Amino acid sequence: MIAVGERINGMFTDVKQAIQEQDKSVVQELARLQTEAGASYLDVNVGTATADKVAAMRWLVETVQEAVDTPIAVDSQNLDVTRAGLEVCENQAMINSTQGHPEKLEAYIGLAVEHDADLVGLTMDARGVPQDVNTRVEIAATLASAAMEKGLDVQRLFIDPIVIPVNVAQDQPGKILEVMQQIRMLSDPPPHIIVGLSNLSQSSKERPLINRTFLVMAAAAGLDSAIVDVFDRELMDAWITAEMILNKHIYSDSFLAAARRR
Amino acid sequence: MIAVGERINGMFTDVKQAIQEQDKSVVQELARLQTEAGASYLDVNVGTATADKVAAMRWLVETVQEAVDTPIAVDSQNLDVTRAGLEVCENQAMINSTQGHPEKLEAYIGLAVEHDADLVGLTMDARGVPQDVNTRVEIAATLASAAMEKGLDVQRLFIDPIVIPVNVAQDQPGKILEVMQQIRMLSDPPPHIIVGLSNLSQSSKERPLINRTFLVMAAAAGLDSAIVDVFDRELMDAWITAEMILNKHIYSDSFLAAARRR
Repeated sequence: MIAVGERINGMFTDVKQAIQEQDKSVVQELARLQTEAGASYLDVNVGTATADKVAAMRWLVETVQEAVDTPIAVDSQNLDVTRAGLEVCENQAMINSTQGHPEKLEAYIGLAVEHDADLVGLTMDARGVPQDVNTRVEIAATLASAAMEKGLDVQRLFIDPIVIPVNVAQDQPGKILEVMQQIRMLSDPPPHIIVGLSNLSQSSKERPLINRTFLVMAAAAGLDSAIVDVFDRELMDAWITAEMILNKHIYSDSFLAAARRR
Repeated sequence: MIAVGERINGMFTDVKQAIQEQDKSVVQELARLQTEAGASYLDVNVGTATADKVAAMRWLVETVQEAVDTPIAVDSQNLDVTRAGLEVCENQAMINSTQGHPEKLEAYIGLAVEHDADLVGLTMDARGVPQDVNTRVEIAATLASAAMEKGLDVQRLFIDPIVIPVNVAQDQPGKILEVMQQIRMLSDPPPHIIVGLSNLSQSSKERPLINRTFLVMAAAAGLDSAIVDVFDRELMDAWITAEMILNKHIYSDSFLAAARRR
């Protein structure tokens, strides 16, 4: 169970303002609280806070590291911003993310190997986000074989089958569960499976219920990591319980507290 | 989504006492409230209330039917008690349950055909409850082919892979999810898949959390029916949400209320 805390993202108003005003306290408080709430990684994304994304990413990573040792997921779709973030990461980091385009893939895998970083690979390529199971699995296979060829251990690869809002395309979540079941058969050991969970319930009512219900189903289909709101205690409880039911955490009457202590 | 209300069972103290005192009000109140809470069937089990189980089953079924039209699941491991219950059922009923023993199976399928009833078949036989995936699936196949041979539509068959308490055998729930995935491939259309959910969390803390988490995982694996506490609103919400995510209920902002109205 690898929870990536989603909160240090310039898409959130408080973080955007903190970046603009170089106010460390907001960012460091989020870093500490997410770590306490069970984040294994802290996602760091400058969002649209500033035009100088390279400087902003460096500042965010350094600011987080002054507060906590939690590994950072450098979240950007721009290679230069990603590289700038990685260069100041003191611990093993995660790159979030690359896609299935051959050139992109080569550059990002090179970066991951150079910085000994985990790499999130989205199941999309020049054609966009596929709507069917087979194309997603094909791209996942491309990601896994490219990693193996270029010397990135497949266990450092996190494949993200891309969830889209359920109120936009209701047939997609079921297909994504099928994709996950196939990804875990891709290799032995398989790559990790990750999703950016909150996107599923974008513009829906009942967001927490939808998020935690899908997360539990995804855990049963092979997902072992997710970019989530770690402050959502019911979500974290549901995830721990799903993994306990799958025999990944030993049952005791205090299995929730035991998982939190780890 | 076929919810079988578990509450009219002589294992519960209030129902046991109601059977002993022939107090209809307790039973009828449970029948009405479970129906309002979304039960598609009401399980009726005399438990250990009395030595004369045949008379008690007849009285329970008649008492329930005076209050509601909801179909009844006649729940007994004794063929005479089951037959007595079916004989007084006015609506289509469910038989809960038979097992994979050849003679038992033949008698129960005959009874189901005779009374135009649904039939729950447990994946156990003379050897007991199997602990592995393959034997459970084998018994499920035996149940399905016996139904087809004897003239019971496979869509009237509800296969129950038998959940046992997670704190007793923590490797079993994950195996049961695999069994479900295989059962839904047994035939086209497949048999229903059902579980007696509450048994999973017997003697555990966090019972509601464990129950609803497994139910969501099971829904993703193919389960479409369960014997549950329909008064557990969070459980019912989670189940509705799982089916919405699987595209079985159309999404709207009021999908929970819409599912409840059906």
